[in-house]
Amino acid sequence: MTPPEARARFRGGLRVPTAGLCPGWTQANLLAVPRAYAYDLLLFAQRNPRPCPVLDVGDEGAVRTSIFPGDLRTDLPGYVVYEDGVAVAELSDVTPFWRADLVPFLFGCSFTFEDALLRAGVPVRHQETGSNVPMYRTGLLCREAGALSGPLVVSMRPVPAALVATAVRVTSRYPAVHGAPVHVGEPEQLGIRDLKAPDFGDPVEIRPGEVPVFWACGVTTQAAVMASGVRFAIGHAPGHMAITDARDADYVVP
Amino acid sequence: MTPPEARARFRGGLRVPTAGLCPGWTQANLLAVPRAYAYDLLLFAQRNPRPCPVLDVGDEGAVRTSIFPGDLRTDLPGYVVYEDGVAVAELSDVTPFWRADLVPFLFGCSFTFEDALLRAGVPVRHQETGSNVPMYRTGLLCREAGALSGPLVVSMRPVPAALVATAVRVTSRYPAVHGAPVHVGEPEQLGIRDLKAPDFGDPVEIRPGEVPVFWACGVTTQAAVMASGVRFAIGHAPGHMAITDARDADYVVP
Repeated sequence: MTPPEARARFRGGLRVPTAGLCPGWTQANLLAVPRAYAYDLLLFAQRNPRPCPVLDVGDEGAVRTSIFPGDLRTDLPGYVVYEDGVAVAELSDVTPFWRADLVPFLFGCSFTFEDALLRAGVPVRHQETGSNVPMYRTGLLCREAGALSGPLVVSMRPVPAALVATAVRVTSRYPAVHGAPVHVGEPEQLGIRDLKAPDFGDPVEIRPGEVPVFWACGVTTQAAVMASGVRFAIGHAPGHMAITDARDADYVVP
Repeated sequence: MTPPEARARFRGGLRVPTAGLCPGWTQANLLAVPRAYAYDLLLFAQRNPRPCPVLDVGDEGAVRTSIFPGDLRTDLPGYVVYEDGVAVAELSDVTPFWRADLVPFLFGCSFTFEDALLRAGVPVRHQETGSNVPMYRTGLLCREAGALSGPLVVSMRPVPAALVATAVRVTSRYPAVHGAPVHVGEPEQLGIRDLKAPDFGDPVEIRPGEVPVFWACGVTTQAAVMASGVRFAIGHAPGHMAITDARDADYVVP
Protein backbone atom coordinates (compact mmCIF):
# COMPACT_ATOMS: atom_id res chain seq x y z
CA MET A 1 0.00 0.00 0.00
CA THR A 2 1.22 3.50 -0.78
CA PRO A 3 0.59 6.37 1.64
CA PRO A 4 -2.17 7.86 -0.58
CA GLU A 5 -3.88 4.46 -0.71
CA ALA A 6 -3.66 4.02 3.05
CA ARG A 7 -5.01 7.52 3.65
CA ALA A 8 -7.91 6.84 1.28
CA ARG A 9 -8.81 3.68 3.20
CA PHE A 10 -8.72 5.49 6.52
CA ARG A 11 -10.85 8.25 4.99
CA GLY A 12 -13.23 5.48 4.02
CA GLY A 13 -13.51 4.35 7.62
CA LEU A 14 -10.82 1.66 8.10
CA ARG A 15 -9.76 1.72 11.74
CA VAL A 16 -6.56 -0.24 12.50
CA PRO A 17 -3.25 0.39 14.24
CA THR A 18 -0.73 1.40 11.59
CA ALA A 19 2.39 -0.53 12.70
CA GLY A 20 3.78 -2.37 9.70
CA LEU A 21 1.65 -0.53 7.15
CA CYS A 22 3.39 1.12 4.19
CA PRO A 23 6.91 -0.05 5.13
CA GLY A 24 9.53 2.54 4.23
CA TRP A 25 7.11 5.46 4.62
CA THR A 26 7.30 7.61 7.70
CA GLN A 27 4.49 7.54 10.24
CA ALA A 28 3.82 10.46 12.55
CA ASN A 29 2.02 11.50 15.71
CA LEU A 30 -0.57 14.25 15.19
CA LEU A 31 -1.33 16.93 17.73
CA ALA A 32 -3.29 20.00 16.67
CA VAL A 33 -3.53 22.79 19.24
CA PRO A 34 -4.98 26.29 19.15
CA ARG A 35 -2.50 28.96 18.01
CA ALA A 36 -2.41 30.27 21.58
CA TYR A 37 -0.69 27.02 22.62
CA ALA A 38 1.52 26.61 19.57
CA TYR A 39 4.61 28.31 20.94
CA ASP A 40 4.45 26.38 24.19
CA LEU A 41 4.08 23.11 22.28
CA LEU A 42 6.97 23.87 19.94
CA LEU A 43 9.13 24.84 22.92
CA PHE A 44 8.02 21.73 24.83
CA ALA A 45 9.16 19.71 21.82
CA GLN A 46 12.47 21.54 21.64
CA ARG A 47 13.08 20.87 25.33
CA ASN A 48 12.04 17.21 25.08
CA PRO A 49 13.44 16.08 21.73
CA ARG A 50 13.54 12.36 22.51
CA PRO A 51 9.77 11.94 22.93
CA CYS A 52 8.76 14.94 20.77
CA PRO A 53 10.83 15.11 17.58
CA VAL A 54 9.10 17.66 15.34
CA LEU A 55 8.82 16.44 11.76
CA ASP A 56 6.54 19.19 10.44
CA VAL A 57 4.32 22.06 11.56
CA GLY A 58 1.42 23.25 9.45
CA ASP A 59 0.18 26.79 9.22
CA GLU A 60 -2.64 27.98 11.45
CA GLY A 61 -5.90 26.54 10.13
CA ALA A 62 -4.18 24.24 7.63
CA VAL A 63 -5.44 20.65 7.30
CA ARG A 64 -2.28 19.43 5.61
CA THR A 65 1.46 19.93 5.96
CA SER A 66 4.35 19.60 3.56
CA ILE A 67 4.91 15.92 4.35
CA PHE A 68 1.21 15.08 4.77
CA PRO A 69 -0.62 16.14 1.59
CA GLY A 70 -3.84 14.39 2.65
CA ASP A 71 -6.54 15.80 4.93
CA LEU A 72 -5.54 15.71 8.59
CA ARG A 73 -9.21 15.70 9.66
CA THR A 74 -10.14 12.43 7.95
CA ASP A 75 -7.05 10.58 6.70
CA LEU A 76 -5.86 9.01 9.95
CA PRO A 77 -7.49 5.81 11.21
CA GLY A 78 -8.42 7.32 14.57
CA TYR A 79 -8.46 10.51 16.61
CA VAL A 80 -8.92 11.70 20.17
CA VAL A 81 -10.52 15.07 20.92
CA TYR A 82 -9.52 16.79 24.15
CA GLU A 83 -11.34 19.51 26.06
CA ASP A 84 -9.77 20.96 29.19
CA GLY A 85 -7.29 18.11 29.17
CA VAL A 86 -9.94 15.40 29.09
CA ALA A 87 -10.46 13.00 26.19
CA VAL A 88 -14.07 13.71 25.27
CA ALA A 89 -14.37 11.76 22.02
CA GLU A 90 -12.52 9.07 20.10
CA LEU A 91 -13.59 8.88 16.46
CA SER A 92 -12.43 8.42 12.88
CA ASP A 93 -13.36 11.82 11.41
CA VAL A 94 -12.78 15.06 13.29
CA THR A 95 -14.02 17.44 10.61
CA PRO A 96 -16.84 18.75 12.83
CA PHE A 97 -14.35 19.48 15.63
CA TRP A 98 -11.59 21.14 13.58
CA ARG A 99 -11.13 24.86 14.28
CA ALA A 100 -9.67 27.66 12.20
CA ASP A 101 -7.14 28.50 14.92
CA LEU A 102 -5.65 24.99 15.12
CA VAL A 103 -1.98 24.51 14.31
CA PRO A 104 -1.19 20.91 13.31
CA PHE A 105 2.06 19.38 14.55
CA LEU A 106 3.49 16.10 13.30
CA PHE A 107 5.98 14.33 15.57
CA GLY A 108 8.17 11.35 14.76
CA CYS A 109 6.93 7.84 15.59
CA SER A 110 8.95 4.77 16.50
CA PHE A 111 7.00 2.74 13.93
CA THR A 112 9.41 4.39 11.50
CA PHE A 113 12.34 2.26 12.67
CA GLU A 114 10.45 -1.01 13.04
CA ASP A 115 11.13 -1.87 9.43
CA ALA A 116 14.85 -1.42 10.14
CA LEU A 117 14.55 -3.58 13.27
CA LEU A 118 12.91 -6.37 11.30
CA ARG A 119 15.55 -6.18 8.59
CA ALA A 120 18.21 -6.50 11.31
CA GLY A 121 16.53 -9.64 12.62
CA VAL A 122 14.95 -8.06 15.69
CA PRO A 123 11.38 -9.32 16.13
CA VAL A 124 8.58 -6.79 16.67
CA ARG A 125 6.00 -8.59 18.78
CA HIS A 126 2.99 -6.31 18.21
CA GLN A 127 3.48 -6.66 14.47
CA GLU A 128 3.61 -10.46 14.83
CA THR A 129 0.33 -10.46 16.73
CA GLY A 130 -1.38 -7.70 14.76
CA SER A 131 -2.03 -5.72 17.93
CA ASN A 132 -1.24 -2.16 18.96
CA VAL A 133 2.14 -1.37 20.55
CA PRO A 134 1.98 -1.12 24.36
CA MET A 135 2.64 2.37 25.73
CA TYR A 136 3.13 3.47 29.33
CA ARG A 137 3.13 6.70 31.29
CA THR A 138 6.38 6.79 33.27
CA GLY A 139 7.28 8.53 36.49
CA LEU A 140 9.80 10.67 34.63
CA LEU A 141 8.71 14.26 34.07
CA CYS A 142 9.40 16.16 30.87
CA ARG A 143 10.97 19.61 30.97
CA GLU A 144 8.15 22.14 31.21
CA ALA A 145 7.46 24.80 28.60
CA GLY A 146 4.98 27.55 29.41
CA ALA A 147 1.61 25.97 30.08
CA LEU A 148 2.77 22.46 29.18
CA SER A 149 4.13 19.78 31.48
CA GLY A 150 3.64 16.09 31.89
CA PRO A 151 5.21 12.66 32.12
CA LEU A 152 7.37 10.88 29.59
CA VAL A 153 5.41 8.19 27.74
CA VAL A 154 7.31 5.20 26.38
CA SER A 155 6.57 2.39 23.96
CA MET A 156 7.83 -1.09 24.79
CA ARG A 157 9.10 -3.91 22.62
CA PRO A 158 10.33 -7.23 24.07
CA VAL A 159 13.75 -8.00 22.59
CA PRO A 160 15.74 -11.25 22.93
CA ALA A 161 18.69 -10.52 25.20
CA ALA A 162 21.18 -11.37 22.46
CA LEU A 163 19.61 -8.76 20.19
CA VAL A 164 19.29 -5.83 22.59
CA ALA A 165 22.56 -4.32 21.41
CA THR A 166 21.43 -4.66 17.80
CA ALA A 167 18.15 -2.94 18.62
CA VAL A 168 20.04 -0.07 20.27
CA ARG A 169 22.44 0.26 17.36
CA VAL A 170 19.74 0.17 14.70
CA THR A 171 17.38 2.63 16.36
CA SER A 172 20.09 5.08 17.36
CA ARG A 173 20.43 5.79 13.64
CA TYR A 174 16.94 7.32 13.72
CA PRO A 175 17.27 10.25 16.15
CA ALA A 176 14.41 12.12 14.43
CA VAL A 177 11.94 9.38 15.35
CA HIS A 178 12.87 8.78 19.01
CA GLY A 179 16.26 7.18 18.35
CA ALA A 180 17.88 4.81 20.83
CA PRO A 181 15.94 3.35 23.76
CA VAL A 182 15.61 5.49 26.86
CA HIS A 183 15.64 2.43 29.13
CA VAL A 184 16.41 -1.29 28.88
CA GLY A 185 14.88 -3.71 31.38
CA GLU A 186 13.85 -2.77 34.96
CA PRO A 187 10.42 -1.26 34.18
CA GLU A 188 9.84 -0.42 37.86
CA GLN A 189 12.65 2.14 37.63
CA LEU A 190 10.45 3.98 35.14
CA GLY A 191 7.53 3.78 37.55
CA ILE A 192 5.79 1.11 35.47
CA ARG A 193 4.15 -1.35 37.86
CA ASP A 194 2.51 -3.79 35.48
CA LEU A 195 3.69 -4.36 31.92
CA LYS A 196 0.48 -6.26 31.28
CA ALA A 197 -1.56 -3.10 31.82
CA PRO A 198 -0.31 -0.47 29.36
CA ASP A 199 -1.81 3.03 29.56
CA PHE A 200 -2.28 3.05 25.78
CA GLY A 201 -2.32 0.27 23.18
CA ASP A 202 -2.37 -3.47 23.91
CA PRO A 203 -0.25 -5.68 26.16
CA VAL A 204 2.19 -8.05 24.42
CA GLU A 205 3.77 -11.28 25.60
CA ILE A 206 7.32 -11.14 26.95
CA ARG A 207 8.87 -14.55 26.36
CA PRO A 208 11.60 -16.20 28.42
CA GLY A 209 14.97 -14.71 27.46
CA GLU A 210 13.45 -11.43 26.31
CA VAL A 211 14.06 -8.04 27.85
CA PRO A 212 11.52 -5.20 27.78
CA VAL A 213 13.08 -2.30 25.87
CA PHE A 214 11.58 1.17 26.15
CA TRP A 215 11.63 3.96 23.59
CA ALA A 216 10.39 7.53 24.05
CA CYS A 217 6.92 7.86 22.53
CA GLY A 218 5.14 10.72 20.78
CA VAL A 219 2.02 10.14 22.88
CA THR A 220 4.03 12.15 25.43
CA THR A 221 2.55 15.25 23.78
CA GLN A 222 -0.99 14.01 24.44
CA ALA A 223 -0.07 13.10 28.00
CA ALA A 224 1.04 16.73 28.39
CA VAL A 225 -2.30 17.91 27.01
CA MET A 226 -4.02 15.84 29.68
CA ALA A 227 -1.64 16.71 32.53
CA SER A 228 -1.80 20.42 31.71
CA GLY A 229 -5.53 20.82 31.16
CA VAL A 230 -5.07 22.20 27.65
CA ARG A 231 -8.35 23.86 26.67
CA PHE A 232 -8.70 22.11 23.32
CA ALA A 233 -6.63 19.75 21.19
CA ILE A 234 -6.97 16.97 18.67
CA GLY A 235 -4.53 14.08 18.54
CA HIS A 236 -4.30 10.79 16.70
CA ALA A 237 -5.59 7.74 18.55
CA PRO A 238 -2.42 6.15 20.00
CA GLY A 239 -0.96 3.67 17.51
CA HIS A 240 -3.21 4.99 14.74
CA MET A 241 -0.73 7.27 13.05
CA ALA A 242 -0.58 9.76 10.22
CA ILE A 243 1.10 8.03 7.27
CA THR A 244 3.13 10.68 5.49
CA ASP A 245 4.80 11.03 2.12
CA ALA A 246 8.21 11.28 3.79
CA ARG A 247 10.49 8.27 3.62
CA ASP A 248 12.10 6.59 6.61
CA ALA A 249 15.37 6.98 4.74
CA ASP A 250 14.99 10.76 5.11
CA TYR A 251 15.47 10.42 8.86
CA VAL A 252 18.36 7.99 9.08
CA VAL A 253 21.85 9.15 10.03
CA PRO A 254 25.11 7.41 9.12
CA MET B 1 40.26 29.31 29.57
CA THR B 2 37.03 27.92 31.00
CA PRO B 3 33.64 29.26 29.87
CA PRO B 4 33.14 31.21 33.15
CA GLU B 5 36.58 32.80 32.72
CA ALA B 6 35.88 33.73 29.09
CA ARG B 7 32.52 35.20 30.01
CA ALA B 8 34.13 37.24 32.79
CA ARG B 9 36.67 38.67 30.34
CA PHE B 10 33.96 39.60 27.86
CA ARG B 11 31.96 41.16 30.68
CA GLY B 12 35.11 43.16 31.43
CA GLY B 13 35.19 44.52 27.89
CA LEU B 14 37.35 42.09 25.86
CA ARG B 15 36.13 42.17 22.29
CA VAL B 16 37.49 39.36 20.07
CA PRO B 17 36.06 36.74 17.73
CA THR B 18 35.63 33.54 19.70
CA ALA B 19 36.85 30.90 17.22
CA GLY B 20 39.35 28.64 18.96
CA LEU B 21 38.53 29.90 22.46
CA CYS B 22 37.65 27.36 25.15
CA PRO B 23 38.15 24.30 22.92
CA GLY B 24 35.70 21.53 23.75
CA TRP B 25 33.04 23.95 25.01
CA THR B 26 30.09 24.71 22.80
CA GLN B 27 29.68 28.16 21.29
CA ALA B 28 26.31 29.51 20.28
CA ASN B 29 24.56 32.19 18.26
CA LEU B 30 22.35 34.50 20.31
CA LEU B 31 19.13 36.01 19.03
CA ALA B 32 16.70 37.57 21.49
CA VAL B 33 13.33 38.59 20.09
CA PRO B 34 10.15 39.95 21.64
CA ARG B 35 7.71 37.26 22.78
CA ALA B 36 5.42 38.25 19.90
CA TYR B 37 8.05 36.91 17.47
CA ALA B 38 9.11 33.87 19.48
CA TYR B 39 6.80 31.34 17.85
CA ASP B 40 7.72 32.48 14.37
CA LEU B 41 11.42 32.25 15.22
CA LEU B 42 11.10 28.78 16.73
CA LEU B 43 9.10 27.65 13.70
CA PHE B 44 11.62 29.26 11.33
CA ALA B 45 14.31 27.26 13.11
CA GLN B 46 12.30 24.05 12.88
CA ARG B 47 11.82 24.60 9.16
CA ASN B 48 15.47 25.49 8.57
CA PRO B 49 17.37 23.14 10.86
CA ARG B 50 20.69 23.27 8.99
CA PRO B 51 21.32 27.00 9.58
CA CYS B 52 19.18 27.32 12.74
CA PRO B 53 19.76 24.36 15.09
CA VAL B 54 18.14 25.34 18.40
CA LEU B 55 20.36 24.53 21.37
CA ASP B 56 18.34 26.29 24.03
CA VAL B 57 15.50 28.76 24.55
CA GLY B 58 15.25 30.87 27.67
CA ASP B 59 12.06 32.00 29.32
CA GLU B 60 10.55 35.38 28.48
CA GLY B 61 12.62 38.08 30.16
CA ALA B 62 15.37 35.68 31.24
CA VAL B 63 19.00 36.76 30.82
CA ARG B 64 20.34 33.21 31.06
CA THR B 65 19.42 29.77 29.82
CA SER B 66 20.12 26.27 31.06
CA ILE B 67 23.37 25.99 29.07
CA PHE B 68 24.40 29.65 29.50
CA PRO B 69 24.49 30.41 33.23
CA GLY B 70 26.15 33.81 32.66
CA ASP B 71 24.40 37.08 31.83
CA LEU B 72 23.33 37.22 28.19
CA ARG B 73 23.38 41.04 28.26
CA THR B 74 27.07 41.40 29.09
CA ASP B 75 28.91 38.09 28.77
CA LEU B 76 29.34 37.95 24.99
CA PRO B 77 32.18 39.87 23.34
CA GLY B 78 29.87 41.80 21.02
CA TYR B 79 26.24 42.45 20.15
CA VAL B 80 24.12 43.97 17.42
CA VAL B 81 20.85 45.74 18.23
CA TYR B 82 18.17 45.77 15.52
CA GLU B 83 15.20 48.09 15.15
CA ASP B 84 12.77 47.54 12.30
CA GLY B 85 15.26 45.17 10.73
CA VAL B 86 18.11 47.67 10.75
CA ALA B 87 21.29 47.29 12.80
CA VAL B 88 21.23 50.45 14.90
CA ALA B 89 24.03 49.73 17.34
CA GLU B 90 26.97 47.38 17.75
CA LEU B 91 28.29 47.28 21.27
CA SER B 92 29.68 45.08 24.04
CA ASP B 93 26.95 45.53 26.68
CA VAL B 94 23.27 45.56 25.80
CA THR B 95 21.90 45.92 29.33
CA PRO B 96 20.28 49.30 28.51
CA PHE B 97 18.54 47.77 25.49
CA TRP B 98 17.29 44.52 27.06
CA ARG B 99 13.51 44.33 27.42
CA ALA B 100 11.30 42.31 29.73
CA ASP B 101 9.47 40.72 26.78
CA LEU B 102 12.62 39.36 25.11
CA VAL B 103 12.96 35.60 24.63
CA PRO B 104 16.61 34.54 24.21
CA PHE B 105 17.40 31.82 21.68
CA LEU B 106 20.74 30.05 21.40
CA PHE B 107 21.54 28.38 18.09
CA GLY B 108 24.41 26.05 17.27
CA CYS B 109 27.63 27.47 15.82
CA SER B 110 30.10 25.83 13.48
CA PHE B 111 32.97 26.89 15.75
CA THR B 112 31.87 23.85 17.75
CA PHE B 113 33.27 21.42 15.21
CA GLU B 114 36.46 23.33 14.41
CA ASP B 115 38.28 21.58 17.23
CA ALA B 116 37.28 18.25 15.66
CA LEU B 117 38.45 19.48 12.23
CA LEU B 118 41.84 20.44 13.66
CA ARG B 119 42.19 17.08 15.42
CA ALA B 120 41.47 15.39 12.08
CA GLY B 121 44.24 17.39 10.42
CA VAL B 122 41.98 19.83 8.57
CA PRO B 123 43.39 23.36 8.81
CA VAL B 124 41.11 26.20 9.90
CA ARG B 125 42.44 29.30 8.18
CA HIS B 126 40.72 31.98 10.24
CA GLN B 127 42.08 30.39 13.40
CA GLU B 128 45.59 30.37 11.88
CA THR B 129 45.35 34.08 11.10
CA GLY B 130 43.45 35.11 14.22
CA SER B 131 40.71 36.70 12.14
CA ASN B 132 36.94 36.24 12.07
CA VAL B 133 35.41 33.52 9.88
CA PRO B 134 34.08 34.83 6.54
CA MET B 135 30.30 34.63 6.18
CA TYR B 136 28.17 35.26 3.10
CA ARG B 137 24.53 35.86 2.31
CA THR B 138 23.57 33.35 -0.40
CA GLY B 139 20.89 33.48 -3.07
CA LEU B 140 19.14 30.51 -1.44
CA LEU B 141 15.99 31.40 0.46
CA CYS B 142 15.04 29.78 3.74
CA ARG B 143 11.58 28.33 4.26
CA GLU B 144 9.37 31.09 5.61
CA ALA B 145 7.66 30.96 9.01
CA GLY B 146 5.04 33.56 9.83
CA ALA B 147 6.68 36.99 9.71
CA LEU B 148 10.16 35.59 9.12
CA SER B 149 11.90 35.01 5.83
CA GLY B 150 15.36 35.59 4.46
CA PRO B 151 18.40 34.14 2.77
CA LEU B 152 20.63 31.30 3.91
CA VAL B 153 23.91 32.61 5.32
CA VAL B 154 26.97 30.37 5.10
CA SER B 155 30.42 30.34 6.66
CA MET B 156 33.39 29.39 4.48
CA ARG B 157 36.59 27.50 5.22
CA PRO B 158 39.20 26.77 2.54
CA VAL B 159 40.04 23.05 2.67
CA PRO B 160 42.85 21.25 0.80
CA ALA B 161 41.23 19.13 -1.90
CA ALA B 162 42.59 15.92 -0.39
CA LEU B 163 40.91 16.74 2.93
CA VAL B 164 37.46 17.78 1.73
CA ALA B 165 36.05 14.30 2.32
CA THR B 166 37.54 14.29 5.81
CA ALA B 167 35.96 17.68 6.54
CA VAL B 168 32.58 16.37 5.38
CA ARG B 169 32.89 13.20 7.42
CA VAL B 170 34.00 14.97 10.59
CA THR B 171 31.39 17.73 10.51
CA SER B 172 28.51 15.44 9.57
CA ARG B 173 28.89 14.00 13.06
CA TYR B 174 27.73 17.36 14.47
CA PRO B 175 24.21 17.79 13.06
CA ALA B 176 23.19 20.00 15.99
CA VAL B 177 25.77 22.62 15.06
CA HIS B 178 25.19 22.83 11.29
CA GLY B 179 26.58 19.40 10.41
CA ALA B 180 27.97 18.61 6.99
CA PRO B 181 28.70 21.34 4.43
CA VAL B 182 25.79 22.60 2.36
CA HIS B 183 28.04 23.26 -0.64
CA VAL B 184 31.59 22.43 -1.77
CA GLY B 185 33.29 24.65 -4.34
CA GLU B 186 31.49 26.74 -6.98
CA PRO B 187 30.59 29.76 -4.84
CA GLU B 188 28.79 31.44 -7.76
CA GLN B 189 26.15 28.69 -7.59
CA LEU B 190 25.32 30.04 -4.14
CA GLY B 191 25.09 33.56 -5.55
CA ILE B 192 28.39 34.57 -3.96
CA ARG B 193 30.20 36.85 -6.40
CA ASP B 194 33.37 37.68 -4.53
CA LEU B 195 34.82 35.48 -1.79
CA LYS B 196 37.12 38.36 -0.86
CA ALA B 197 34.14 40.45 0.18
CA PRO B 198 32.23 38.54 2.86
CA ASP B 199 29.00 40.03 4.17
CA PHE B 200 30.09 39.34 7.75
CA GLY B 201 33.51 38.60 9.27
CA ASP B 202 36.87 38.83 7.49
CA PRO B 203 38.12 37.48 4.15
CA VAL B 204 40.65 34.64 4.30
CA GLU B 205 43.25 33.47 1.80
CA ILE B 206 42.38 30.50 -0.41
CA ARG B 207 45.66 28.83 -1.34
CA PRO B 208 46.37 26.83 -4.49
CA GLY B 209 44.92 23.35 -4.16
CA GLU B 210 42.28 24.46 -1.68
CA VAL B 211 38.53 24.35 -2.22
CA PRO B 212 36.08 26.76 -0.55
CA VAL B 213 33.73 24.70 1.60
CA PHE B 214 30.49 26.23 2.86
CA TRP B 215 28.57 25.41 6.02
CA ALA B 216 25.16 26.74 7.02
CA CYS B 217 25.60 29.59 9.51
CA GLY B 218 23.56 30.75 12.49
CA VAL B 219 23.78 34.36 11.30
CA THR B 220 20.94 33.23 9.02
CA THR B 221 18.61 34.15 11.89
CA GLN B 222 19.94 37.72 11.95
CA ALA B 223 19.68 37.94 8.15
CA ALA B 224 16.01 37.01 8.59
CA VAL B 225 15.60 39.77 11.18
CA MET B 226 16.96 42.21 8.61
CA ALA B 227 15.08 40.83 5.61
CA SER B 228 11.80 40.72 7.53
CA GLY B 229 11.93 44.10 9.23
CA VAL B 230 11.60 42.61 12.70
CA ARG B 231 10.62 45.43 15.06
CA PHE B 232 13.28 44.75 17.67
CA ALA B 233 15.94 42.12 18.27
CA ILE B 234 19.34 41.67 19.83
CA GLY B 235 21.92 39.30 18.34
CA HIS B 236 25.55 38.50 18.95
CA ALA B 237 28.06 40.30 16.72
CA PRO B 238 28.85 37.72 14.01
CA GLY B 239 31.80 35.57 15.08
CA HIS B 240 31.54 36.87 18.65
CA MET B 241 29.63 33.99 20.16
CA ALA B 242 28.07 33.00 23.45
CA ILE B 243 30.39 30.49 25.12
CA THR B 244 28.20 28.02 26.95
CA ASP B 245 28.69 25.41 29.64
CA ALA B 246 27.65 22.66 27.20
CA ARG B 247 30.35 20.43 25.79
CA ASP B 248 30.95 19.82 22.09
CA ALA B 249 30.80 16.12 22.97
CA ASP B 250 27.14 16.62 23.90
CA TYR B 251 26.35 17.29 20.24
CA VAL B 252 28.31 14.59 18.46
CA VAL B 253 26.58 11.56 16.95
CA PRO B 254 28.20 8.17 16.28
